[in-house]
Amino acid sequence: MIEITNDWIIEENSFELDRLNHSETVFTISNGYFGTRGVFEEGHPGEVRSTFIHGIFDDVPVVFTELANTPDWLEMEILLAGERFCLNQGTVLNYHRELDLHTGILRRTVKWRSPQGRISSLVFERFASLSNEHLAGLRVLVRFENHFGKIVIRSGLNGEVDNKGVKHWDWLGQSIKGQYTWLHCCTRATKIDLASAFWLEMHSEQRVQYECWNVHNHPTLAVESILDRNQSVVITKWVLYANSQEMKNPLDWVMNGLKQLPDLVWGEQVIEHANAWKAEWEHCDVVIDGDVEAQLAVRFNIFQLLSAAPRNNDRVNIGAKTLSGYGYRGHCFWDTEIFMLPFFTYTRPAIAKNLLTYRFNGLQGARRKASANGYRGAQFPWESALTGDEVTPTWIPDNSDRTKLIRIWTGDIEIHISADVAFSVWQYWQVTGDDEFIEKYGAEMILETARFWASRVEWVAERERFEISDIIGPDEYHDHVDNNVYTNYMARWNLQAALQVIEWLKEYLNPAWQRLRNQLDLKEEEIQTWKRVIEGIYISHNPQTHLMEQFDGYFQRKDINLPALEPRTQSIQALLGIESTNETQVLKQPDVLMLFYVLPQSFDVRTVQVNYDYYSVRTDHTYGSSLGPSIHAIMSAWVGDRKTAYEHFMRAARADLIDERGNASDGIHGASAGGLWQAVVFGFGGLKHTEDGWITHPHLPEHWKRVIFTISDHGKPVQIEVRGQE
Amino acid sequence: MIEITNDWIIEENSFELDRLNHSETVFTISNGYFGTRGVFEEGHPGEVRSTFIHGIFDDVPVVFTELANTPDWLEMEILLAGERFCLNQGTVLNYHRELDLHTGILRRTVKWRSPQGRISSLVFERFASLSNEHLAGLRVLVRFENHFGKIVIRSGLNGEVDNKGVKHWDWLGQSIKGQYTWLHCCTRATKIDLASAFWLEMHSEQRVQYECWNVHNHPTLAVESILDRNQSVVITKWVLYANSQEMKNPLDWVMNGLKQLPDLVWGEQVIEHANAWKAEWEHCDVVIDGDVEAQLAVRFNIFQLLSAAPRNNDRVNIGAKTLSGYGYRGHCFWDTEIFMLPFFTYTRPAIAKNLLTYRFNGLQGARRKASANGYRGAQFPWESALTGDEVTPTWIPDNSDRTKLIRIWTGDIEIHISADVAFSVWQYWQVTGDDEFIEKYGAEMILETARFWASRVEWVAERERFEISDIIGPDEYHDHVDNNVYTNYMARWNLQAALQVIEWLKEYLNPAWQRLRNQLDLKEEEIQTWKRVIEGIYISHNPQTHLMEQFDGYFQRKDINLPALEPRTQSIQALLGIESTNETQVLKQPDVLMLFYVLPQSFDVRTVQVNYDYYSVRTDHTYGSSLGPSIHAIMSAWVGDRKTAYEHFMRAARADLIDERGNASDGIHGASAGGLWQAVVFGFGGLKHTEDGWITHPHLPEHWKRVIFTISDHGKPVQIEVRGQE
Repeated sequence: MIEITNDWIIEENSFELDRLNHSETVFTISNGYFGTRGVFEEGHPGEVRSTFIHGIFDDVPVVFTELANTPDWLEMEILLAGERFCLNQGTVLNYHRELDLHTGILRRTVKWRSPQGRISSLVFERFASLSNEHLAGLRVLVRFENHFGKIVIRSGLNGEVDNKGVKHWDWLGQSIKGQYTWLHCCTRATKIDLASAFWLEMHSEQRVQYECWNVHNHPTLAVESILDRNQSVVITKWVLYANSQEMKNPLDWVMNGLKQLPDLVWGEQVIEHANAWKAEWEHCDVVIDGDVEAQLAVRFNIFQLLSAAPRNNDRVNIGAKTLSGYGYRGHCFWDTEIFMLPFFTYTRPAIAKNLLTYRFNGLQGARRKASANGYRGAQFPWESALTGDEVTPTWIPDNSDRTKLIRIWTGDIEIHISADVAFSVWQYWQVTGDDEFIEKYGAEMILETARFWASRVEWVAERERFEISDIIGPDEYHDHVDNNVYTNYMARWNLQAALQVIEWLKEYLNPAWQRLRNQLDLKEEEIQTWKRVIEGIYISHNPQTHLMEQFDGYFQRKDINLPALEPRTQSIQALLGIESTNETQVLKQPDVLMLFYVLPQSFDVRTVQVNYDYYSVRTDHTYGSSLGPSIHAIMSAWVGDRKTAYEHFMRAARADLIDERGNASDGIHGASAGGLWQAVVFGFGGLKHTEDGWITHPHLPEHWKRVIFTISDHGKPVQIEVRGQE
Repeated sequence: MIEITNDWIIEENSFELDRLNHSETVFTISNGYFGTRGVFEEGHPGEVRSTFIHGIFDDVPVVFTELANTPDWLEMEILLAGERFCLNQGTVLNYHRELDLHTGILRRTVKWRSPQGRISSLVFERFASLSNEHLAGLRVLVRFENHFGKIVIRSGLNGEVDNKGVKHWDWLGQSIKGQYTWLHCCTRATKIDLASAFWLEMHSEQRVQYECWNVHNHPTLAVESILDRNQSVVITKWVLYANSQEMKNPLDWVMNGLKQLPDLVWGEQVIEHANAWKAEWEHCDVVIDGDVEAQLAVRFNIFQLLSAAPRNNDRVNIGAKTLSGYGYRGHCFWDTEIFMLPFFTYTRPAIAKNLLTYRFNGLQGARRKASANGYRGAQFPWESALTGDEVTPTWIPDNSDRTKLIRIWTGDIEIHISADVAFSVWQYWQVTGDDEFIEKYGAEMILETARFWASRVEWVAERERFEISDIIGPDEYHDHVDNNVYTNYMARWNLQAALQVIEWLKEYLNPAWQRLRNQLDLKEEEIQTWKRVIEGIYISHNPQTHLMEQFDGYFQRKDINLPALEPRTQSIQALLGIESTNETQVLKQPDVLMLFYVLPQSFDVRTVQVNYDYYSVRTDHTYGSSLGPSIHAIMSAWVGDRKTAYEHFMRAARADLIDERGNASDGIHGASAGGLWQAVVFGFGGLKHTEDGWITHPHLPEHWKRVIFTISDHGKPVQIEVRGQE
């Protein structure tokens, strides 16, 4: 059980087997280059062990591509006077694990009685260095409490790792000499070279003996010494990773780096790493006065976003489950643009820029997708990995009937993501004023997505309007719908934004505009078409009731009394089935409210309130989309319902820490983490960016005394304080 | 290139990288318990490395279940004065590999110059003991030719193996002490325990040093010594396997066995093993006088059948690719019953009995399949593995369009296999006179399949007959056909056989009949239905032309001029596409001729000749079914066309040895191997089993002087000699 007793430290005070995989997710350490789940060094049956490196994808059946679990740096077999240390044996006398969010250090202390009665104490510390992203550090202290004899540890680099049964690595070479080891391997299909290396030392009062076990694809250092009662040894392992996506010869690089590793001093590296984290917190911290759980949860979620953020790589994105689990195989979704990016745009624009540049680098893939579907411009993939091409699985096995398969349609028709990408570019521009980015990258992205929409809409002569039929909106309980209001509205917005970008370019950077126009072969008549689409596209809105119908015919679908189905432990879709849920008005997430959240300035208070009242009660808040609760918290705050806002907020806050949805073992809910920050800043804080600067319009939960958040003002952190009712 | 220069030895005199995987199949060694592909001990890039053990299946996506590649016993890293021996480095000065079919010993000799110019000679010998099926032996001689220094070998049991990227094993435990090692693991889904162990020794004139590298899941013995110029060492490795399907505690068993391994003497074990092979050859050899290639090919194919045959296990079958490759994942088909079983029934009935008992043990699965489809009795699965349940994949990815999948229908509607199983039981009974088998197992199998057919046929009132619609016959180029003549005829045969079994039981074993009748709840009225089906089932036969139409409407399909498509290197189906081929008369294999081959006594000479003339020219002999050529050889021989018979025969003979079809790297074509024996004995030899005993009616190829084959007469081998034209 994760304990919440202070502001900065995630704690676990007992070892619970049934929480093994959940805790592994929570105790992930990650530095934006690599991420390692919180598994035990010594291993445990049932563990889900992984280290992922951004961008190292390899082919896999059904889901096309996945982050490849990389050679394991953590592994450490520990023999205490001949008995193998593992928590499934003997007795755990004492157990404590803590992740210090302020310093990014994970520490576990265990007091263990072996099956034969030997009592030992062990302290494990590890970190993924934020000051040197290729570096990992592991330190283990072992103390014999009531016995004496041989202490043996075996630790290596295991190239025989797999992704839940699927192997991704071919061996290229290895070496182990003295305390120095390297391993060189290559992904089987994508041919990405990975070099890893480590140096290991045992400090003991007695003589230490090292043996090099140069086993193929698993070079292992076997170290032993002798311990008296109450004596201890300390083992330090420094690990380096490098790969061919960032440099030409990663093996040379790690071989050079390996030579320096013995000079590293644990305390110094920890301080450098902790200082790097401190600097991040200066830019990003949120203080919540009056709510310990909310405080810790918000910091935990910010920690996850910062952990996953690529600082020196603009060719990777943050997957839906960050680098912390197998869920969604490392693929990224609109989760980045709509949920996570605002956090980075407002606090760490340099990271936001990397993530947006990833999409720019994916433009060719998006063009291929548009073209393959018969459209123009750029259609961004619903799921994206290394190349920017669509990687959504088209069919997945139906577990209930093995002769059947389930067709996944999101890759074909959940098309709103193209507007979401354009929106995130626009938002980044508005908030940071980074004109250079727009000139070089952003304009092309907004124009090419606009072009896609103009080719995607359908002119319906009998109704004299443009429509968009046969799609899926953010609410995935309903597929193959027509005129989804979120999609139609965002398409129009995208076209409008394109016109504004053109105007701006013409005015301020006319040579750039001429270049871009030529490059994209963008004719005036095409731009005129965009204007006609903007004017003619259908947006559902009832002028009497102010209700916006989520899609054509939604109001005619069956209305379900959701509270009558409580208590439940699964989603409405799992409860009623895919087809039956499609026939109801129950929502996985409310598209109309999503739209208000993305474009708040575009809707009046009355419209917001009416639609909030209608859609909120029809949403599967508990087991629908994990993206929903934080956004719903914002909407509830905006309509003044602070109590409900807080309920939704805490649902998001607990998604990973408490595992409220039951799937945290698959990895961190990255979008929920980003949404949680937005709920504090935009929802409760009511922050708005206007032409006159930042303004806040607080709706704090009643028991919150004060919130302080930090945003970037041209790269400098500025603290904004919001006070609750006295 | 496989060389054919003598009667008993398969030879290869050069190392050709582009034949690597083909040669691995050809040089597989196997003893009916386990089989290991002919990979190099030291490994080679691009190799397809596998050891399979009968019955050790584990779950896998898409194809449901597959033989799990077991921990690797062969692996041996060899360092010659510091340089790693591998044929992709340095220069191969001399290379010879031979598989002695008479003794089952595989030997490779290599003279190799290292990149730095050191010349060494190596001799590798291995065998899968036929006298002790749990035992494998490996011996390596290394000689330094022009240099001196350290010889290092590292060899272990590698539990980190995979099936082309899919891992199947969980680690349970391991130990390595002195020269003794064991590894204990368990399949991930099916939870089959496998214990493996080895003892290894290096004989050297200098001191030998052993190091135990107890690396997790890959215990490895590192051995070294010093060699002078022209000195050599010999390494001997004995390996044991045992699994929980054959005993309660395989780990105890191998730990006990491990203690005895140092007492084994290489020469003694080789002699015991070779004697066991000698005994097999006394029962099974075929001598062909006047055709070296045919002689060696027939022995090679008999060797494959005997290698794959389970001698002490009646819960496993022989997969379509024996134990020699990943093709068809170890699943078994009608290939066993119709193609391989006659060989065993006629020469080694004890093995035939094991294979038939496998099907008896699968009756529950077959009943589940019948019942799930709404039928009675037993419907045997098209593809079968561990449980006897259907394991044909239902969908496989379409490589040409990743949004598409190809539906595989054979598991649903290729139903003739139930009659094929019944037929093989009947044939075994007729040939061996094993009444006890019929009483205990066979009768139930024939009655339950008859019952299936009676429930499967459809009464068509307007034509006043029983029909069978919507199926696939042996010719898989045509699916969803009605009244496939092979299937309808075999269904009728199955029902007739059931009546005969009942009559026989009533007459000779009435108490057994009463028991079986009660057990199966078989009422007289049900038996009466069978008679009506026998009388009323439609069998296509034109009394004027004597042509039998393969299925309804076949003669109306498009007639293709096959010779006009030559030369080609792929099947007609690959050339024209699945749909287009379905619309033609081109056959993957000719069902009508298949029927004549299975039930030769039932058809007159005229009918055979007319249909042979019609169907033979419409069959894709080169790249259609690999099951076709040997059967076509028989048919050609029977109609007196010995020249064509020989062409078909050699096509089958070369399927694996010469890799004529280009897919031998997936594993041995087991059915073709069985068919080849039948082509000699039933085709060219014209052997028939009559009430008066064995008679032959030879149609030898012109250049064959003499054929001697052996058949079992109540367990004793009897040689039958057939002479060609003088």
